[in-house]
Amino acid sequence: MSPGVIRYRGHAIQDLIGNVSFAQMIWLMTRGELPGAGQARLLDAALMAAVDHGPQAPSIAIARMAATCGVGLNNAMASALNVLGDVHGGAGEQAVEMFRAIAARQDGGLSLADAVAAGLDEAIAARGKFVSGFGHRFHPVDPRAPRLLALVDEAAREGGVSGRFAAIARAVEDELATRKSGRRIPMNIDGATAVIYAELGFPAPLARGLFCLSRSVGILAHAWEQTQQGGRNKGPMPRDYLWTYDGPAPIA
Amino acid sequence: MSPGVIRYRGHAIQDLIGNVSFAQMIWLMTRGELPGAGQARLLDAALMAAVDHGPQAPSIAIARMAATCGVGLNNAMASALNVLGDVHGGAGEQAVEMFRAIAARQDGGLSLADAVAAGLDEAIAARGKFVSGFGHRFHPVDPRAPRLLALVDEAAREGGVSGRFAAIARAVEDELATRKSGRRIPMNIDGATAVIYAELGFPAPLARGLFCLSRSVGILAHAWEQTQQGGRNKGPMPRDYLWTYDGPAPIA
Amino acid sequence: MSPGVIRYRGHAIQDLIGNVSFAQMIWLMTRGELPGAGQARLLDAALMAAVDHGPQAPSIAIARMAATCGVGLNNAMASALNVLGDVHGGAGEQAVEMFRAIAARQDGGLSLADAVAAGLDEAIAARGKFVSGFGHRFHPVDPRAPRLLALVDEAAREGGVSGRFAAIARAVEDELATRKSGRRIPMNIDGATAVIYAELGFPAPLARGLFCLSRSVGILAHAWEQTQQGGRNKGPMPRDYLWTYDGPAPIA
Amino acid sequence: MSPGVIRYRGHAIQDLIGNVSFAQMIWLMTRGELPGAGQARLLDAALMAAVDHGPQAPSIAIARMAATCGVGLNNAMASALNVLGDVHGGAGEQAVEMFRAIAARQDGGLSLADAVAAGLDEAIAARGKFVSGFGHRFHPVDPRAPRLLALVDEAAREGGVSGRFAAIARAVEDELATRKSGRRIPMNIDGATAVIYAELGFPAPLARGLFCLSRSVGILAHAWEQTQQGGRNKGPMPRDYLWTYDGPAPIA
Repeated sequence: MSPGVIRYRGHAIQDLIGNVSFAQMIWLMTRGELPGAGQARLLDAALMAAVDHGPQAPSIAIARMAATCGVGLNNAMASALNVLGDVHGGAGEQAVEMFRAIAARQDGGLSLADAVAAGLDEAIAARGKFVSGFGHRFHPVDPRAPRLLALVDEAAREGGVSGRFAAIARAVEDELATRKSGRRIPMNIDGATAVIYAELGFPAPLARGLFCLSRSVGILAHAWEQTQQGGRNKGPMPRDYLWTYDGPAPIA
Repeated sequence: MSPGVIRYRGHAIQDLIGNVSFAQMIWLMTRGELPGAGQARLLDAALMAAVDHGPQAPSIAIARMAATCGVGLNNAMASALNVLGDVHGGAGEQAVEMFRAIAARQDGGLSLADAVAAGLDEAIAARGKFVSGFGHRFHPVDPRAPRLLALVDEAAREGGVSGRFAAIARAVEDELATRKSGRRIPMNIDGATAVIYAELGFPAPLARGLFCLSRSVGILAHAWEQTQQGGRNKGPMPRDYLWTYDGPAPIA
Repeated sequence: MSPGVIRYRGHAIQDLIGNVSFAQMIWLMTRGELPGAGQARLLDAALMAAVDHGPQAPSIAIARMAATCGVGLNNAMASALNVLGDVHGGAGEQAVEMFRAIAARQDGGLSLADAVAAGLDEAIAARGKFVSGFGHRFHPVDPRAPRLLALVDEAAREGGVSGRFAAIARAVEDELATRKSGRRIPMNIDGATAVIYAELGFPAPLARGLFCLSRSVGILAHAWEQTQQGGRNKGPMPRDYLWTYDGPAPIA
Repeated sequence: MSPGVIRYRGHAIQDLIGNVSFAQMIWLMTRGELPGAGQARLLDAALMAAVDHGPQAPSIAIARMAATCGVGLNNAMASALNVLGDVHGGAGEQAVEMFRAIAARQDGGLSLADAVAAGLDEAIAARGKFVSGFGHRFHPVDPRAPRLLALVDEAAREGGVSGRFAAIARAVEDELATRKSGRRIPMNIDGATAVIYAELGFPAPLARGLFCLSRSVGILAHAWEQTQQGGRNKGPMPRDYLWTYDGPAPIA
């Protein structure tokens, strides 16, 4: 950066503008280099697939409430983004960690099945019975996951990624089904995006960072929608519940 | 501040510790000098009276939700504090502004009644029909307000404060009743604490700052209670509502 | 949303994944429909051009400091995003407002020059001598602006946008130069992105929301870089300044 | 809570107002009962002693920067409070944990010296060479600690607290000195307030919560001071450093 000059990781900004997508820029900023076309397509898919999952997610509920409290859109977004913590926003990061730990066990000589069993045990020991990236309270099958995995398979056929982490994730699904007497606990959005981030070489913590960028879109959209609908200090309960509220009553 | 020495506004910390209450320290930090005993008692009352008003306030709901998302207590508190904006946390500040504007009109020669009428018109023109500091959606009479006003009256009798802003606030109540054909819209917690902050000489924006300190106690208490109750990604609706949630399902 | 089904604004998620870019998804979520190709390209350019402007911006400094305090990446991002307020993040929104107000005066019958003069007067009356979207403390010419305007011109030639707001922004530049005796105060990144957002039909508040999404990339990149560099409770001053810090000293 | 009635933990608010200090109210809200007078005095001291430690702490620097970005006081406070994480705000919590773990080893039959040695080893294994609550980068002796400990000793003599955790903390100091060949690493503010919180029976996570309430006062005071000083988008470096900044230049 010098007067009249802005370079990102060595690239002059005027050469990037118009030639590089937002997703490619995200890669450049976090990785230090530009991605290939196939890599950029996968990153784009992971980012766009996780933008929103409805108003009942705490982050979205918070964004909507905040938008009725007399703060700026950026503040409403910040209160919401802030809760994408280990439980609400960490599943992708945790799944990347698990997939990487399984891969490391394979590199150490274990078979895929043995590495998966050991990696799953380790994850359950660390975080309990919720296996990050698998299962969904609401969807029997999360429709985002198979579509994202299909894109990974396609990229693997074209040589853009190895496909190794897609294989690991599917082996985790199989192992979970075996442990549940055949009942499948399919990959969810966090598991599928974790496959992509692992295939693309992102460190696990960036999986959370990228999820934050993605979900910020849904957070913004809901905060904006609530702003347009209006409302003052809207609390968490449905309208017909008794609710108590600190603000003044209208005088007219 | 130098090695081994900490002074606040000229007072060595070791002389303050044990001799000055938390409320007096809040005064010292925001005003630059220590309060008198009567002043400190009023500030203490205003701070302790506004700590909480139940889980339906957006700030409290946010603190509780955040506590289920895998973030620290400080993060849960921050997401909540962040929404104490113009609508949810600004009523005290706005009431101080109105009371001060009315006092300024009196200083300019208007009678109390005329100053109140003009000040009220101005506040309604600026912020609409919700007159900050008066009326409550839930309480016909907010039980905190008369008790706080009684403390102001007592302090005025003892010469600690002038009592001028208590008189102005009561005249606003009367004017509102006149405009509503006799139906009273009594002072609420924000109006009563605004009287105290105005009597004590705090600038209007600090009324919001002090409310933030006060309400942070309720925010902490609720976030901590929720932490002890547990729960993962608890959204805004009661349990028996359908809700959709991004996290993983338990495997065992 | 129903079990196994996720639709965004009517589009099934599996049809969107792989076919729609992150920028197109941002449009869909905030506008309710998919953009045309030329529109998407402009939005992409505006989003990617504003991701970062170095560690001295308060938001970036905050993200880096936060990353040394023992909080999650999402928390570091939230503290930073939270300060993209009227002064630090509102210039694009304010510029869109000004451009729209000028267009409205044209629609009301004023010439471009008269509408610009009146709109500029109004903006200066409202916010003082800093005209949002024009001038830069550091860059004589902000290299991002002319490149973004060239993309708008190209899109206008292709019929994707009207070019009206590019003309208004350039007329504002000319009017500013006239008022400054010929010294040009060129459009900056906020002015150029505001032209794009106005051309694309985004309401002014969404210009801030979109800037928040864009700058979140730089915020994440810096927080992550700082995380990798390590450090504990890093304060604002360079290392060789005396700094005082509350944490414990190492014992070994 | 019912119309016209507000009770906190069974106490009607009008009975609390004027009779209970802010510190006592903090105890009531977090513990569910009112403290004794001696307990309240210690809590008051711990809260008031930790309000501030100068502008170089990241939280304070963030509050001041935020105050120049065009956001509300509550937002500036939230961005700052949000970084009181494990490293910047967790030392008190971690010290309470260590003191409690040492007490538990005593209860299990170890001598104080053996329990301290084992507890210290455990803390260092968990968090490395920074022992939370001991040592200060800036102060050879933190002047707040001996004064707070004197208050604990006084309360112990009066029977208000047991004095057990003061003894443990002093034994930790001695053990650290032994390990450092006689060089003392004295208790700091976090260690001394942790002694108080442990003596008063607060769970360790509340030690962080109470620190957040306390430091919020300094955060507010600095944000307010910066607000009064003005400034736009003030970044982290001293004025005479080159700094680059996104906002517009003044036109007049």
